[in-house]
Amino acid sequence: MAVSYVESPSPSFLFDLDGTLIDSVYQHVIAWRAALSAIGIDLSVWRIHRRIGMSGGLFVSALLRETGRTLSKDDIDRLQLAHAEQYRAQVDGVTALPGARELLGFLTDADVPWAIATSGYAATARPALGLLGLAEDTPMVTRDLVRHAKPDPDLFLAAAAVLGVEARHAFVVGDSVWDLLAARRAGALGVGLLSGGYGREELERAGAYRVYADPAEMLARIDELGVRPLRPMILVTQGEVRHRTACSGGFRQHFVRESFAAAPLRASRD
Amino acid sequence: MAVSYVESPSPSFLFDLDGTLIDSVYQHVIAWRAALSAIGIDLSVWRIHRRIGMSGGLFVSALLRETGRTLSKDDIDRLQLAHAEQYRAQVDGVTALPGARELLGFLTDADVPWAIATSGYAATARPALGLLGLAEDTPMVTRDLVRHAKPDPDLFLAAAAVLGVEARHAFVVGDSVWDLLAARRAGALGVGLLSGGYGREELERAGAYRVYADPAEMLARIDELGVRPLRPMILVTQGEVRHRTACSGGFRQHFVRESFAAAPLRASRD
Repeated sequence: MAVSYVESPSPSFLFDLDGTLIDSVYQHVIAWRAALSAIGIDLSVWRIHRRIGMSGGLFVSALLRETGRTLSKDDIDRLQLAHAEQYRAQVDGVTALPGARELLGFLTDADVPWAIATSGYAATARPALGLLGLAEDTPMVTRDLVRHAKPDPDLFLAAAAVLGVEARHAFVVGDSVWDLLAARRAGALGVGLLSGGYGREELERAGAYRVYADPAEMLARIDELGVRPLRPMILVTQGEVRHRTACSGGFRQHFVRESFAAAPLRASRD
Repeated sequence: MAVSYVESPSPSFLFDLDGTLIDSVYQHVIAWRAALSAIGIDLSVWRIHRRIGMSGGLFVSALLRETGRTLSKDDIDRLQLAHAEQYRAQVDGVTALPGARELLGFLTDADVPWAIATSGYAATARPALGLLGLAEDTPMVTRDLVRHAKPDPDLFLAAAAVLGVEARHAFVVGDSVWDLLAARRAGALGVGLLSGGYGREELERAGAYRVYADPAEMLARIDELGVRPLRPMILVTQGEVRHRTACSGGFRQHFVRESFAAAPLRASRD
């Protein structure tokens, strides 16, 4: 008996930037520590780390609540500028995370829609495109384009809109609890990466569907997220039938040995 | 019927330094990142963070295993020096963690033995005594005084010996998984602090008896660790009986209201 049901569409991916695609979290943490200290706010560094990834405004509010201090709007603006300056002083040490370029390249080649959604401002975030070898017109939503940042869902909802997909059919990929909470508020599933320095259990408890070490491990296990080769091709070499996806990464090559004199060369849907 | 048994002695405390008493972990992480990068080893920063607190030698070996590189003894010595230099450049941002001075002062005043046991070398570690307001002759065991560092138990066994106590009657207090593993190998109970930036569950899974945010929270909950006032005194003021410990911190004041015209002023064992 055939059962009739509506298939889910293939997933799309909405990526956080810092700690998810580029290795910049610890430099941001130290930059915030220096900026706060300069105005007489001495917060333990781990508390700053646990707030990174929130919107700048929420982040500062949360930290001030813990210290019992209040700051004017001007103070907060100055703090943001001081942080940006301190971060620029450390940015030479920032690189792409292992597998980040390959993961994005794989998704592109497999026709899987993806975008970047970051709590950072365009001025700080756009230079990361170069680190990742991405074009200037890569779909990216920054803090300045939405009303509220994480853990509000706005950044991910906007990124889904840019792609023309529904957030509930997207995976949000992020390194922090705030990404995963924002994912749930956007109705998306969250994937956690350890590369921002948070513990696996923190991410699982915030609702992560899966947790991987970094983009490289996520790519190696991309099958767990329902990404399937869209344009598999069968290549014949020396009596072997190779089912190879259309993607260039080479991570999804599957070899099927068969005694086959001359297999037909064709492309088909899986 | 009276039951005869051997009481446990009052506990003593063996403290890790970085991330446990002083807020230096993130600066060490960034310093290692810069030192490794200078010799062409590009490791994700979170992986360095997860190795901090091991002995320098083990730490570098573990990281090299992950990268598949090998280094000579000379290379490793140069790396240690480069790290020390990078750390010195950041040391101005390092402060005592909240409650660290008060916790140590409380233990001293309550006649509870304690010592510091750190994987750091004396040259880097001794300046921390000043940050903590401690005398130069504070019991402290550094890397140069023992054969193996954490997660081997040597540092904590040596610190217990310095105090003339048995490790099995001591609490090891540390921020990293390596402290807690070394505690278990020393036969001691481990207390985890979140102030080094690791997740609560990582510390619990490594065997922590209790996990606190930082030294301030540990002090507020010191009863959970079996520390009792050694010299309680009953002070009488205005018809109230105040049971007050001999310690100066004021964190363990308990007030018992009673209608008491003139209570006898006396000191007694609890």
